[in-house]
Amino acid sequence: MAGTSGGSVANAEELNGDDMTNRTYELDRAHVFHSWSPQGSLTPMVIESAEGSYVTDDQGQRFLDFSSQLVFTNIGHQHPRVVKAIQDQAAKLCTIAPQHANAARSEAAHLIAGLAPDGLEHVFFTNGGADAVEHAVRMARLHTGRRKVLSRYRSYHGGTQTAVNLTGDPRRWPNDYGADGVVHFFGPFLYRSEFHATTQAEECERALAHLERTIQMEGPSTIAAIILETIPGTAGIMPPPPGYLEGVRELCDRYGIVWIADEVMAGFGRTGTWFALDLYDAKPDLITFAKGVTSGYVPLGGVIVSDAIYATFADRVYPGGLTYSGHPLACAAAVATIETMKDEQIVEQAATLGTEVFGPGLAELQERHACVGEVRGVGAFWALELVADRETREPLAPYGGSSPAMNEVVAACKKNGLLPFVNYNRIHVVPALNIGIDEARSGLAVLDEALSVGDAHVAR
Amino acid sequence: MAGTSGGSVANAEELNGDDMTNRTYELDRAHVFHSWSPQGSLTPMVIESAEGSYVTDDQGQRFLDFSSQLVFTNIGHQHPRVVKAIQDQAAKLCTIAPQHANAARSEAAHLIAGLAPDGLEHVFFTNGGADAVEHAVRMARLHTGRRKVLSRYRSYHGGTQTAVNLTGDPRRWPNDYGADGVVHFFGPFLYRSEFHATTQAEECERALAHLERTIQMEGPSTIAAIILETIPGTAGIMPPPPGYLEGVRELCDRYGIVWIADEVMAGFGRTGTWFALDLYDAKPDLITFAKGVTSGYVPLGGVIVSDAIYATFADRVYPGGLTYSGHPLACAAAVATIETMKDEQIVEQAATLGTEVFGPGLAELQERHACVGEVRGVGAFWALELVADRETREPLAPYGGSSPAMNEVVAACKKNGLLPFVNYNRIHVVPALNIGIDEARSGLAVLDEALSVGDAHVAR
Ligand SMILES: Cc1ncc(COP(=O)(O)O)c(C=O)c1O
Ligand SMILES: Cc1ncc(COP(=O)(O)O)c(C=O)c1O
Repeated sequence: MAGTSGGSVANAEELNGDDMTNRTYELDRAHVFHSWSPQGSLTPMVIESAEGSYVTDDQGQRFLDFSSQLVFTNIGHQHPRVVKAIQDQAAKLCTIAPQHANAARSEAAHLIAGLAPDGLEHVFFTNGGADAVEHAVRMARLHTGRRKVLSRYRSYHGGTQTAVNLTGDPRRWPNDYGADGVVHFFGPFLYRSEFHATTQAEECERALAHLERTIQMEGPSTIAAIILETIPGTAGIMPPPPGYLEGVRELCDRYGIVWIADEVMAGFGRTGTWFALDLYDAKPDLITFAKGVTSGYVPLGGVIVSDAIYATFADRVYPGGLTYSGHPLACAAAVATIETMKDEQIVEQAATLGTEVFGPGLAELQERHACVGEVRGVGAFWALELVADRETREPLAPYGGSSPAMNEVVAACKKNGLLPFVNYNRIHVVPALNIGIDEARSGLAVLDEALSVGDAHVAR
Repeated sequence: MAGTSGGSVANAEELNGDDMTNRTYELDRAHVFHSWSPQGSLTPMVIESAEGSYVTDDQGQRFLDFSSQLVFTNIGHQHPRVVKAIQDQAAKLCTIAPQHANAARSEAAHLIAGLAPDGLEHVFFTNGGADAVEHAVRMARLHTGRRKVLSRYRSYHGGTQTAVNLTGDPRRWPNDYGADGVVHFFGPFLYRSEFHATTQAEECERALAHLERTIQMEGPSTIAAIILETIPGTAGIMPPPPGYLEGVRELCDRYGIVWIADEVMAGFGRTGTWFALDLYDAKPDLITFAKGVTSGYVPLGGVIVSDAIYATFADRVYPGGLTYSGHPLACAAAVATIETMKDEQIVEQAATLGTEVFGPGLAELQERHACVGEVRGVGAFWALELVADRETREPLAPYGGSSPAMNEVVAACKKNGLLPFVNYNRIHVVPALNIGIDEARSGLAVLDEALSVGDAHVAR
C-alpha cells in the first residue's frame, strides 16, 4: 500500500497524456510482477494502443508486430467485429458458472468441435494454454490408468507445475523436482539432428525408432500419454517430417497410449490450416488450444476430447474444473473470431503469406545473409536459425541464453519499427495472419537490414 | 464434427426464442464437457440472462441467486458501470503481451496492492484462482529453497495438479499420486473438532499445537509454505478462532516458512472487509485472489507478493508466466469493480448484511429447524450445517456425497425460486454483497420453508 501516490483511476483520467504515460510506467515498476523475468532490471515498453498489425508505444512510435505479441493476435489487434461481439456479450451476460448451459458457450463448443477432426466432438474450456495441458494430462491419466507422460526436448507447454515439467526447455529446470511423472525424448529436427540423419526421411524413421525404444525402456504399461506440439513453436517452429505424426499415432495405438496434440500456438490458422494437424494424416486423442481461438482478446483455452475419452467420463465424474470454464464473454469472443476468420478467409490468407511472401522472401534472406543457418516454417509461422558459423551451425546465442550479437540484431529491428519474436538464437516471423502483403514485405525489408548486423558476427 | 446440424451463429440468430433455447441445450449436450461431473447424465439449466441478484432460465423462470454462481459475482450480475468499463476497454485495447506495460494493468495492480496490507506491494496476475495458487507455491519454493507445502483438510485450492493436491477434500483423491510434496493437517473447526475441544479458545490452542507438531515431524527444513484459505469457503465457511492466524504467522516466522493466504473466495468484500485477513491481526507473505476481483465478469486472478519475496526475484528470473498475465480487458474490469465497490460502499453493505440480516436471521432458522446443526459465517459468507441428528451431529449427507434428504431440501429451494450453494451436507448463503435487504430476507423465507423438508429427516 505504501510507496505510491494515492491517486485513483478517476484522478488518473484528469492527467494529461505525458503524465498518464509516466504514471503507467511508474505504477508498473511499483506494482506489477512480470512473467519469466528478474523484476528489478525490467524496463517494459508502455503500449498505449494497437490496431491491426501495429502497436504504438508511449512515445507515439508505431511498430509493425511480427510477433503477434506472444503469437496469439492471429486476426491482428482490435478487429472491429470481434470488439463489437465482446461489447454485445458484455451488455447481455458477462459470466455464468460452468455447471449451467449458455448460448455463447454452446455455440463456441459447436464451432470448435466443427473445426477438429471427426470423432473429437466435446470441448472442455479452460482460461489458457497451461490449464488446457493440465486437464488433458489428467484425462489421459484417468483414461489409461497410467501415470507417466512423454514429451520432447525443445518444446513449451505452459507455466503451471505439470505443464512446465512437460516443457522441454530451460524454463523447466528451476521448477523440476523430478517428481511429476514426466520423461523427455528427442523429436525430429534435422538441422540439429540427434540421430545423425542427413535427410528428412531418415530423421523421421530414426526419431520414430528412438521414440519406440524410449517407450519400451520406460515400460509401455507406465505411460499414459505422449504430448507433442504439432509443430513445436517457441522452441523453434520445426514442422515434423512427413510420416512422423502418423508414426506417433501408430505407436500410441500399439501401446495403448493417449496422444495429446498441443495446438495452443500452432492452431487457429497459424499454419495456413485451421489446425497444424490438418497438414498431416493422423488424428490425436486430445487437442489443446488457446491463443488464436480468441486472438487473445479474452482469455480462453481448452481441450477437444475424443469420443473414447469422453466415454470414460460419461458415467464417472471428471475430477477437474475451474470457476471460469466456458466463460460466456470469452466464448462470445471465440465465436466472433472463428466466424470472422471464416468470412474473411483469414486462414487462406495465412497460407498465401507462406507460399507467396515468407517462403520465397526468407529463402532469399538466407541466401544473402551468412548468419542465417536455416529458415523453416509454413503459413505465418516461420523461424530463422541464426548462427555464428554456417558449417558448425554454432548458434548466434547459446541454448537458453542471449548474446551481444543477437541483442544487436533485435535492436536493429526495433530501431526500424519492427517487433520480432526472439528465442535464444532464433528470430520467429509470426505476424497476424491477415497482415497485408505489403506490410509483410516491409517487415522483411527491416529484417534484411538487421541481419546484416548479424552477418558481422559470422566467423566465415 | 459429425452429428450436429451444420448451422453457424448467423443461422442461429434467425431462429425464434424456443428453438434458440433448444439449440443451446442440445449443443451443450453434444459439445460441452463440464467440470467435476459425469458427462452422460447432466441436465444443465440453461441461463438466458441475469441481472443483479437474479438469473433467468430458458423457461423464463427467475431465480434469486444465493450462490453468486460459484461465489464470485460479488457485485451481482451486469453492473452497468463495470459492463461499460469492459466495453470501453474493448474499444481501446483488448490485449497486450505480459512483457509490456499498459495503463489498465498498472492501475489494477496499484489498486489491488492498495487493498493489501503494507509490505505486499506487487501483483503477479493470472487467469484464475488455481494458477494463482500454482504460482504462489512456486514463489514460496524458490524463496525458501524447500519443497513441501502444508495445507489443511477441509479446503479447496483449485483444479490444476498442484492446486488440487493441496486441496483437502475428496476431489483431490482421483488426482493424488502422493508425489506432489503436499502434507495435510487438521485446522480449527470446533463443531467437528479433531482436538476434542469444547471452546474456541481451546480449539485454537490445540490446533496450533497440532500444526507445530506436524511441522516438527515433517521437518521444518523441508517445508516451503503453509497455504490456508483465510476462511475456508467451499469446505464449510469456518472462520478461524481469534488467535489462530496470528499463531500461524508466529510458527511460520519461527520455522522460516512462507504463509500463503488463499483469498480467492473469501476476498474482495465477501466477509464485509476487503480481505478476510482484515478481520485478524496477522500478515501473510503471499495472498492469492481471483473471483470477486472482477466479480467474474472477465477471468482474472493473481498473487500479491511481499517485499521479501519480491526481493528474491529482483535479480533472479522468476521462472513462471502465462500468455494472459495482466490481460488489459480483465484488468480494466478489476479497476471498475474495485472503484464501484468503493463508491457504492459494497463492502460495507456486506458487513451490514452479516450483522443485520444473516447473523440474526440464520440464528433464528437454527432455533426453529431441527436439521440445522450450526450456522457460521460473517458478512455475506454463511454456512448452514445440516444434520440428521443434532446430538451426534451426523451430517444430512455423508462427507463427499449427497443424500435424498439434501436433494429434497435443495429441490424445495429451487422450486420456490432460490439458487443455493450446496456442498455435501451444507447449504451456503453467499449472495451478491449488494443484494437488497428485502431480497435477502425473501431468500431466507424460502430457505425457512425448505428446511422444514429437512426437519422431516431428523431422528430426534
Ligand atoms: C504450445 C503451447 N502450449 C501451451 C502454452 C501455454 O499457454 P498459456 O501461456 O496460455 O498458459 C503455450 C504458450 O505459449 C504454448 O505455446
Ligand atoms: C479458495 C479457493 N482457491 C482457489 C480456487 C480456484 O479458483 P479457480 O476455480 O478460478 O481456478 C477456488 C475456487 O473455488 C477457491 O475457492
